[in-house]
Formats: sequence, C-alpha cells, structure tokens
Amino acid sequence: MKQAALDYHAKPKPGKISIELTKPAETAKDLSLAYSPGVAEPVREIAADPENAYKYTMKGNLVAVISNGTAILGLGNLGALASKPVMEGKALLFKRFAGVDSIDLEVDCESPQDFIDTVKRVACSFGGINLEDIKAPECFEIERRLIEECDIPVFHDDQHGTAIVTAAGMLNALEIAGKKIEEARLVCLGAGSAAISCVKLLISCGMTPANIYMLDSKGVIHTGRDDLNQYKALFAVETDCRTLEDAIDGADAFLGLSGPNLLSPEQLEKMAEKPIVFACANPDPEIRPELAREVRSDVIMATGRSDYPNQVNNVLGFPFIFRGALDVRASRINEEMKVAAVYAIRELAKEEVVQEVVDAYEGIELSFGPEYIIPKPTDPRLLGNVSAAVAKAAVDSGVARLPYPAHYPLKSLDHI
Amino acid sequence: MKQAALDYHAKPKPGKISIELTKPAETAKDLSLAYSPGVAEPVREIAADPENAYKYTMKGNLVAVISNGTAILGLGNLGALASKPVMEGKALLFKRFAGVDSIDLEVDCESPQDFIDTVKRVACSFGGINLEDIKAPECFEIERRLIEECDIPVFHDDQHGTAIVTAAGMLNALEIAGKKIEEARLVCLGAGSAAISCVKLLISCGMTPANIYMLDSKGVIHTGRDDLNQYKALFAVETDCRTLEDAIDGADAFLGLSGPNLLSPEQLEKMAEKPIVFACANPDPEIRPELAREVRSDVIMATGRSDYPNQVNNVLGFPFIFRGALDVRASRINEEMKVAAVYAIRELAKEEVVQEVVDAYEGIELSFGPEYIIPKPTDPRLLGNVSAAVAKAAVDSGVARLPYPAHYPLKSLDHI
Repeated sequence: MKQAALDYHAKPKPGKISIELTKPAETAKDLSLAYSPGVAEPVREIAADPENAYKYTMKGNLVAVISNGTAILGLGNLGALASKPVMEGKALLFKRFAGVDSIDLEVDCESPQDFIDTVKRVACSFGGINLEDIKAPECFEIERRLIEECDIPVFHDDQHGTAIVTAAGMLNALEIAGKKIEEARLVCLGAGSAAISCVKLLISCGMTPANIYMLDSKGVIHTGRDDLNQYKALFAVETDCRTLEDAIDGADAFLGLSGPNLLSPEQLEKMAEKPIVFACANPDPEIRPELAREVRSDVIMATGRSDYPNQVNNVLGFPFIFRGALDVRASRINEEMKVAAVYAIRELAKEEVVQEVVDAYEGIELSFGPEYIIPKPTDPRLLGNVSAAVAKAAVDSGVARLPYPAHYPLKSLDHI
Repeated sequence: MKQAALDYHAKPKPGKISIELTKPAETAKDLSLAYSPGVAEPVREIAADPENAYKYTMKGNLVAVISNGTAILGLGNLGALASKPVMEGKALLFKRFAGVDSIDLEVDCESPQDFIDTVKRVACSFGGINLEDIKAPECFEIERRLIEECDIPVFHDDQHGTAIVTAAGMLNALEIAGKKIEEARLVCLGAGSAAISCVKLLISCGMTPANIYMLDSKGVIHTGRDDLNQYKALFAVETDCRTLEDAIDGADAFLGLSGPNLLSPEQLEKMAEKPIVFACANPDPEIRPELAREVRSDVIMATGRSDYPNQVNNVLGFPFIFRGALDVRASRINEEMKVAAVYAIRELAKEEVVQEVVDAYEGIELSFGPEYIIPKPTDPRLLGNVSAAVAKAAVDSGVARLPYPAHYPLKSLDHI
C-alpha cells in the first residue's frame, strides 16, 4: 500500500490535479479575447458590479481547500506544506464527484488571527472555502469568524462533513433498531471538533441534549467540571457518570471519534438492546466489527473504513453540499442546509440501489438494513439528491442569491 | 469586440480555466490511494523532507498569478476582484504556451505589508509566483521583500516581462540601425514600474546609464530634482535637458511607456538617423506607426499592439522564463536569467521563421529587419530556446537546485 500510494502521487507526473483551458487559445484572435485587449471588457463589468465575477470568471464554480496543516488526518501537526497531498486529494474529490473546480491552498501560519486575515484577503478569488485539517479549538474561532466576515460559503469539513454523514447513518440506525431519536441515549467518546459538530447536528435532528454523554480524555463532560473550554462546556450534562464504564451502561448508541480499541467488549455488552456503534477512529476503530459482532449479534455498526459495511465517508457530503450551495449562490452553509443534506443522504440508503453500484460492490449487502445504513460514495444519485436538498434549503432559509435552479435535480456532471 | 470578449468569457461556462484530475479516481482502490488512507504516505514523506513536495504534489509545476488589482491593465485601481479575468487570462497563457499549471489569486488589500504577509503565508502552495497589475511604487517593495523572503521564484511580470521583451527588441533594433548599445542615447517617456525595469535591464545589457534620459510627468529626471522617490532617483542624470522636447533632440531611441500621442511628429523629426521608436502605450501608442513613417521613413518601430509589426508582448517571456526556472527548481529569477531570456528572444528573431508561423501570419514580413525585430508569440521555438537559456543561466549563476535538465531543450509540451 505504501509504495502504491507514493507511486500514485509521483507518476507519471507529480500530484493529482492540473489546470486546463476551457476556452480556445490558438489564434491571435483567441488571445486578444482571452487577454489584452479583450479582457478589459469583463474587468470593467466586474468593477461596475461585483456579481459579474460569477458571469465572466470561474469564481462561481471554484472552491479553495484551505489548511494550515495543524491536524493532518490522524497524523497531527505536520505543517502546511505536508498537508498538500491531502488538500489536492480533496480538490480531486470535489471535481470527481460534483464537478466543482477546486484548488488547494496551504497557509503557513498557526495563529488564528493571521490565518483568518490571510483567508479573508484571498476569499474574493473563490466561490467557496472548504477548511480542512485545522486543529481544535482554533478551528472553531477560525470558522466562525470566516463565516461572519466572508460573503461566500465557508465550511470546515472535518466538523460538518463528518457530522452530516454520521447523522445520516445514525438516523437510519435508530430507525432500524426501532429507537426514537428524542429518547435515544448517546455516548460520544471524543470531544474534538468533529465530535462536537456531530453532537450539535444530532441535536438539530431531534436528539435530546440531556441524553448525550460526551467524554474527553478526562472522562464524562458534566456540569460539575471546571476545566472545560467554551466549546465543550455547551455539552456538559448533569449526571453522576464519570467514566465511559459508567456512561455506556444502557446506552442506545456509541459514537467513537477517539482512538483504537477504546470500547471494550465488556462495555459493549452493557449497552441497550440493538446497540448502535459508530466506531469511527481511523485506521483502527474503537472496537473491531468482528469482535463487536461476537459479543453482540444485534449490534448495528459503522466505521470510518471502506473495508467494512457502513463507512462514514465525508465524500458523501461535501462535494454535493458545495454543488448545491454554489448553484444557488448561497452566502453561507447554514444549519438548515446541513440538516437537509443529512436527510437526503439517509433517504438514499432506503432506495433501491442502482445497478452500477451493485456491480461495483459485488457480493455486498446493499439493501436498507443493519449492513447498509449509509449509501456508497459512488452512488450516482448523491449528486442530484444531496445538491437539490441543500439548494432548496438555502433558498427556503433565505441565504441563496439565486432561485432554485431550473436544471435541478442534476442527473449527471455533463451540464457543469 | 466588446460583445465578443464578454461572450468569450461567459460562454459556454464562465471563466477560462478549470481544474482537472491527472490521476484515476474511479474505483474504491483509486480513491484509497488519492485520499484516505493512502494519502498519508506522501504526507509523511513531505513532513520528513519538504523537497518531497515536488515529488508528490503539483507544487513544482504550479505558478500563482497574484494581484491586488491596484493597477489593472491600463484601467487603474479597480480592486482585487475586478482583476480576476486578467489573472485567469495569465493563467491560461502559462498553460497554453509553456505547460505551466497556473491559478489566479486575488488579494483584497492595498497595504504592502498585508499583501506581503498574505502572499508569504500561501507561498508554500506553489512552485512560483507571478505578481501582476500592482501599482507603483508599492510593487517594488512588495516584489523585493517577497523575493528575499520566499524560497521560490517571485516575478513581477509588468516590470520584468515587459523589460525582457523590450530589451530583446531594442537590441535587435540597434543592430539593424547600426548603433552601438553602449553609445546609443535613449529617451524613456514614463517612469512607472515597467519603465524603470526596462531601463535597468537595458543597462544590464550594455546601455550606458548617462545616455538614458527618463521622464516622468514633471519632465526629465535629472540630478537637480528633489522630488524623486528612491526608485526614480537611481536614474537621475546630469543634464540641462528639462523636457521631452529637449531630450529627444538627437536621441537614438525612444521608449514610450506613457500615454497616447505623447510623441509628436516634430519631436520624432529631431531624433538621430534611423531612429528607434518603441511606442508601447496601450491601446493607443505614443505615436501611430503610420504617422511616424510619414515623418521619418527610416524609423524602426515597435508597439504594444498585435495589429502592427513588432509587438512587445510579454507572452514571449513569462511562460518560458517560469518553465526554465521551475525545471531547474531555481530559488529566484535573477538578472542573469533575465538577460539570458533577452538574448534567447532576440536571437530567435534572426533565425528563419518556421512554416507554421508563416502560415499564421500570411502576407506579413517575417525576416529579420525593421519590420521583424521580435519573434511572434506563436513561434514554437520560444518554448525550447527561452526556457533552456533561463535554465542554463540559473544553473550557471548558482540559484538552481536541480541540474540542467537532460530532456532540454524542450521540443514540445508533450513531456510536461
């Protein structure tokens, strides 16, 4: 795997994306339109009305994938430059799945203020900004300020992309287990940016805050603690539970965004009937699916891995969420749009799978049930369904500057 | 022209460039190499050695075209966003002529310090930086500091690209007129960033500083003036000349980087035998070629326009200069590399024109002489000749981190 991954990146030429021309540039006439003197015309139009940038430049279909490399994958703070393969990869996924032109931008600074200043100053170049691999808690302040201060969508995918796909899977798991979301008790192991965003979105989807026990490295986040930052403090509950051991007893669902093997078979045994276990630590989950099933045959499991059923994969979300947001020129990606994405993804898992997905996943169970609560990333209907849901929610919630597109729902990338 | 230019930019989709995949991304296997988990491997390699970014990402072939829009074409300060069509156009030219992947970045700030901070922080994303349309005198400080503080080539094309192509044409014009460069007397009308860079480079090519009379809006820049900024002061000469009228008397060459019709027929008449007139104001030159020829049939003329002979067009320079610099991983573009580019371009004008250029410019004189002192932008030999000269100069002057490439001189873009 290591050599294959390095070769993939290095050969036949370095990197994974390129810049190509979309207009003719052969003749002297072409060049006089593309550049001087013709280019002065769109310049004047944009100077007269900034919205014309969407008409005469690639801005409206261009998303920057921006990181400072302080929290790269599971690898930690390796610096801006080292994050470049990840950001290029994200750009590749944007194009591959949703026809969004996307370029990576690595920002070499750790100070949130400097990072914010930098991104704000270059934001006018883009139609949207996908923040990536920025460590907590700085990422919260960075995202909040950029959302407020930029007039284009800014979306920290590690938080919200993860949350959207997790919530979609969780809603389906609860339905299959016959549990009501407002009554379900959730234990969330991990209190990083993804965990906080997941819990927030699950509350937006109907989960009861008092039923959610979040744990950081010091144990359950409860109202008696005085060591909580403002982000964790929001999720403090009144409880006598102090440890995972305490909290897991009778819990309906477990969401792990922590580390390998942190949920023991004994703990799983103590969970309620038809327990839901999202063991999303990568590459080694909080409990291995084989082991979990040995202990509890009624478990409904999801992981972050592609080699087990029910992969919580952000690619189910971000390309289509930006597609929808860009196509109605949303000024931001709000909670309504995230919830709409959750429902679009969960509903797709209930529909009959299309033949090309069946073929690609030969021999794997692909009908709604414990082994299939989340659609596959290559499901071609994600494009149409998720982008349409997001676009509609943007229009309905008043953040869209264009009406719901006449050509929606998208059937393919052909028209992009 | 106006509608054609707007249509070109708007249809069939907005803008002139797109981002495309260079690696397969169809199967689950592909995606596991392009993104998680495979992407962790190049991340680790780059964290261990930053040079590996050139091996595993597109950095080494990626040039950012960066502007704050304070001096867009001849239109003035219209802001960062309005400059986007120009910067996209430049990106298109980079790819079209030299296979350099290029993306535009508009930086919405006028303060040189903020601009420098911003560009420095994002510089690690790129293999080179082309600054564009930044007003003087801020552009000098900005470029100087970025060159010093970044480890990749930073090049303000409005200054140096213009200077390189101008110098190439000027050397050939002097040769055809039978004038020695060290004796030739030049009047440069205009003292902006391009003019200053042109004069500097002509001095690097052998022109005598005391023979160059530069004029700003207040007249000749002479040692008696106390109103000169540090950049203009470098070119102050001891002279009694105060006006263009004074300076032009007996001058061998005129270089106009000023405005329309600022060189009168009477002034042209006063120039030396076989006068050289580079009337580069765009779109309307300092004197129209037809008018100039009426007054002086022995004039050798160049303009910035494509509809007259001898167009001083930056596209003859920047794509190939960056191609050469990137291919030897030069840390900067120094004076030696610029001079090498001048000579490569001037020499090409003396070679027999290839058939495809003859075909494209049917009926136009294309053999070395007063009407052909500068090669045509579509001459396919520019790629090989200029990039090779620049790469060699980089290696010879010690700023290259790679040896002169084995596959040089380039015959085509096929291997890029």
